[in-house]
Parts: sequence; structure tokens; C-alpha cells
Amino acid sequence: MNYIGIDVGGTSIKGGFVSESGEILHRFGFPIEKGLPQEEYINRLADLINEEIVKNDYRKSDFAGVGIGCPGSIDSELGVCDYSNNLQWYGLPVVSIIEKRTGMPCRITNDANAAMAGEAKFGVGKNYRNLVLLTLGTGVGGGVYIDNHLYGGNKGKGAELGHTIIAMDGEPCSCGLKGCLEAYASVSALIRQTKKAMEKDKNSLMWDYVAYDIDRVDGKTAFECAKQNDKTALEVVDQYEDYLTIGLVNFSNIFRPEAIILGGGLSNQREYLTDALAEKLKAAQYGYRHTPKVELFVSELGNDAGILGAAALFID
Amino acid sequence: MNYIGIDVGGTSIKGGFVSESGEILHRFGFPIEKGLPQEEYINRLADLINEEIVKNDYRKSDFAGVGIGCPGSIDSELGVCDYSNNLQWYGLPVVSIIEKRTGMPCRITNDANAAMAGEAKFGVGKNYRNLVLLTLGTGVGGGVYIDNHLYGGNKGKGAELGHTIIAMDGEPCSCGLKGCLEAYASVSALIRQTKKAMEKDKNSLMWDYVAYDIDRVDGKTAFECAKQNDKTALEVVDQYEDYLTIGLVNFSNIFRPEAIILGGGLSNQREYLTDALAEKLKAAQYGYRHTPKVELFVSELGNDAGILGAAALFID
Repeated sequence: MNYIGIDVGGTSIKGGFVSESGEILHRFGFPIEKGLPQEEYINRLADLINEEIVKNDYRKSDFAGVGIGCPGSIDSELGVCDYSNNLQWYGLPVVSIIEKRTGMPCRITNDANAAMAGEAKFGVGKNYRNLVLLTLGTGVGGGVYIDNHLYGGNKGKGAELGHTIIAMDGEPCSCGLKGCLEAYASVSALIRQTKKAMEKDKNSLMWDYVAYDIDRVDGKTAFECAKQNDKTALEVVDQYEDYLTIGLVNFSNIFRPEAIILGGGLSNQREYLTDALAEKLKAAQYGYRHTPKVELFVSELGNDAGILGAAALFID
Repeated sequence: MNYIGIDVGGTSIKGGFVSESGEILHRFGFPIEKGLPQEEYINRLADLINEEIVKNDYRKSDFAGVGIGCPGSIDSELGVCDYSNNLQWYGLPVVSIIEKRTGMPCRITNDANAAMAGEAKFGVGKNYRNLVLLTLGTGVGGGVYIDNHLYGGNKGKGAELGHTIIAMDGEPCSCGLKGCLEAYASVSALIRQTKKAMEKDKNSLMWDYVAYDIDRVDGKTAFECAKQNDKTALEVVDQYEDYLTIGLVNFSNIFRPEAIILGGGLSNQREYLTDALAEKLKAAQYGYRHTPKVELFVSELGNDAGILGAAALFID
């Protein structure tokens, strides 16, 4: 059986026909032009799916269904995008439109949940039954995989792991609360932390790295300069990893998963990120001697995580 | 089918024969005399179970099995009490002893997990599929119920909800970390908070309530004096509820359960505790309009929660 995976991003909608083993057999997609009536994007997606099936000589029954990963607040039970800030979608009944226009079953979840499903079925998590995934990007997304199934919570609105308070009365978060993990461990937070440290140390190599233009600071700045042993950059990275470790400790104690997987932009730092985190996590482990270790991995699906994760929504 | 539920406490081991509907048909138990070889407690329990079955004219096949709730770090897969601080048990193979001596299947989990199972099968959680339970006592215990099953995590070592950091670099916790929920929301923490407030306000009604002996402060002191409108007591309760709300917000966002249940000693405050918490939780809810409400309940099983919860380990 094959699957259709759709990765809705901020600037484009990408899709793929995916095989049982996680091979992307065929790719398609289109850029998101802003300003259309919201149903138009989904109608256009349905048209494209039908067109690609026909042109490539597949038939409907070659596919178990159409899985969709979408940023925002998704009601995965009703199949509706309740709200997506980036896309400015409100109450968009994605699943019913796709099912009506293609005749195939359709499932939708948020992008972090889809990433979790992808890692569990095709990625570094495929030998595990209980997993937690954190996507480190503009925000901190979360996915939870329990007993070989993606965990949704009521209406699929759980696993908002970035919105867990780790610092009472701490940094303001986009959700309106204070001290959420997202406000400390997202790439946006790292950028803020990097800039703050640079303002305090005008001699840091990081200034050179961004050609003395602080607006060019991104999630790589501190990591790249830390690799060159810049003291301030090392401190920023160390502090950032301390923040992230709090989240890792919490999710370890809550879920005691076999592994936690890091995805999103920062996961490109790979071992440089995970080796230090694994040490910090080990040092903070609860009930040290009597508690099974939680492994720490970085996503290996890269840019295809979205398509593969969406496709995986149809694999039980 | 009936069940045998065993509630291991700090000072006694209590048991009951429990019916399908959660009625305790017969009770038994014995006090824990300190200082015996650890296997002796379990051998004695096995003797007592056999004796009660015979004396009351039951037979082994009248029971699905023996469920045990036990404080400490329990390996529920191997059926071993890895470590119980209170009881000074280390690597005690409880399940194998009971199974060998009674011929019945036996399951063991920690006391908070058992409480969760009891509430889900017989208590306020029985109409829900996804639940979180917090026991507010000496520590903060946690139980998680997912898709109609008790969640254990790897080797049953998950659901340590009290050991989630809510205050970076905060109050020291018994687990060795700083800022855990347990260090803010346990009864021990409330007592510490109460004493601290009393030291600052020598005119508080709370002094009168404890007959000017600060060592008599317990988990009720602030609540009882708050009911009499003592300003400092009201502040202590309000602050304590703010701390607890952080945990409730986090577990709501992580699990999006249908309900969270509060158990343990403090749950005796009932509506006085939950009404305020429900308001605070509502105000801090993530994605307000698009997120299903998380109900807040207090345990209704009272002193029988331990026996019923242990019995419920055999109900699927």
C-alpha cells in the first residue's frame, strides 16, 4: 500500500506519494499565494492530487489515504484547521474538502505531530514504542508517540510540549503565558539570547560572524562561533542547552519514553547539540539507578520529515 | 469476576476483595513492624491473602488476580519494588513471591498510578478515556490514563508528574533537582509556605489555630484560616493554588486530557480547592477558543482509593 503525504508550510504546500517503506515515489506542490479565499488552497490541493494520480497512472485504491500536516491549532477529530496564524486560516474544513474532491480518506494533524509520526514510522524512532519529539524552530513544537500510536489528546489538541511552564514568572511566551519552554528553547529564543550576549561582549567572534550586523544573527550564530571556541558563544550555547535540558528532564519524567527526538532547524547541529544535552540529561535524571535511560536522537528525515510524517498518519 | 486490591502504606498493608462494580466485599490487613527482613512482609501478605480466601469460603478462581499499589520506584514490568524510601525495600521481587505463594497472577505499580487506575475504573474518572491524576501529599504523585489504559512508560517508570521543573533554579526538591512541582505543590511545600507566611505575620489567625505552636502547622492550617478570611492565610492559599495551577496548565497542554483529578490529603478541601483552581486554569488555558476545556475533579474514593486502585490493575 502507498500513502499520500502533504506538508503544509508557511510559503508552500508540498506533497509526495510515499511507499510502504518510506520512499518518496513522486513529488509535487505549489507555492502559497497570499490573499486567496482559504478554501481555494484546499481545492487547489485536491485538484493537484487528482492530477498527479491520473498523470502518473496510479489509481485511488493504490493509496490508503491522504495525510496532512499543517501548522496551527488542528482539530484532528473533526478534520478542521481551527486556526493557523501563519496561513490566516480559520475553521477550515480541510478533511471534508479533500475527501469530497478525491474520494479518498483524509487525516490531518499539526506539523509537529506529523513529524513525530514520520520519525516513529520511517526515522530514528522506528524501533521504539514510546517516543517524544521536540521541533526546535520559530516555536517549540511537540509530538508524543505512545504504545506505537501518535498521541493526540482531546480533539487532537494535546502534545503542546512547547507550552509548558519551566520558569515561573519567566520570559513572555507567544501563547500569552510566561516562562514556557518555547520562550527559552525555540530558535527565536536562542536568537534573543545570542543578541543579548553579543550586546554585553562587543569583542565576541559572533560580531565578526554576522559582519557586525546584529540583525543577521540566526540560530547558527552561537553554535558556529562556539565551535571556534568563542567564550561568549560557548556560554550562550551552554545556557541554551541548560534551558532545553529542563524540557528534556520534564518529558523524561512524565513519559519515560525510550527516546526523545529533536527536529526542526537546530537539529542540523546534530552531535554538537545532542552530545552535550545527553550529558546534561543524564546528570539530571530522576531516580538515577532505578530508571531506564532515555536516548536522545536528532531527526534524520530532514526536509522530507513533513511529507513522510503526513503519510505516516495512515500507518497503524 | 472479583479482584484483590492491596494498598501498601508507610505504616500498614491494607487489602480488600473487590467486586466488579468496585464494592469492597471484605477487608483485611496488618501493621508494618519495622526491621523485619524485607521478604517477610510479602510472605506475610501472601499468608494473609490465602487465609482470607479460605476462611471466607472463596476460591482462587473467584479472583482475576492480586493488584498491589506501593510507594516508591516500582518496575511494573518485572514486578519488583526497586526502591522504597519509606519502607526501606530494595529490589524486592513482590510479584514473583505473591504469584508463587498464592498461585494467582499479580501486578504491582506505584501508589499514584494505582490511585489513577482506581479513579478511572470506579471513581470520578469513570466516564473518561484520557485522564491525569495528581496526589497532593508528602510529595506530588502522578498518574496518567491514556485511551482507557494506565500509562506506565518504560518499565513503568513514567508519570512522575511531581518531578517536572516549573521554576528554573527554584526550591530544592527531594529528587535532587531544583524547582520541581513537588517542591511547590505538595502538602510539605504548603506547610513550609504556611510557616514562612506566619513568621512574617505574627498577628495571623493561623497562630491561634495552631495554639502558637508552629510545629502543629499542617496542610489544613492555611485552608481553615482562609475560610475565616484571615488575610495572610488567604494569601498562602492563593499563592499555593497559583503554583499548583502551573502544573495543571502544563499537564493540560501536554495531555489535553478530558479531566484532571486531585487526590491525596489536600483533596479533602474539595470545592474550596478546585473552584479556585478551575478559574485559574481557565484563565491560563492555551489556545483558549479552540481548545477543549479540561475538567477538574477531586477524588471521591477517599481512604479506599488505594485498595480499589490496586484492584483496578486487573480490569482492562
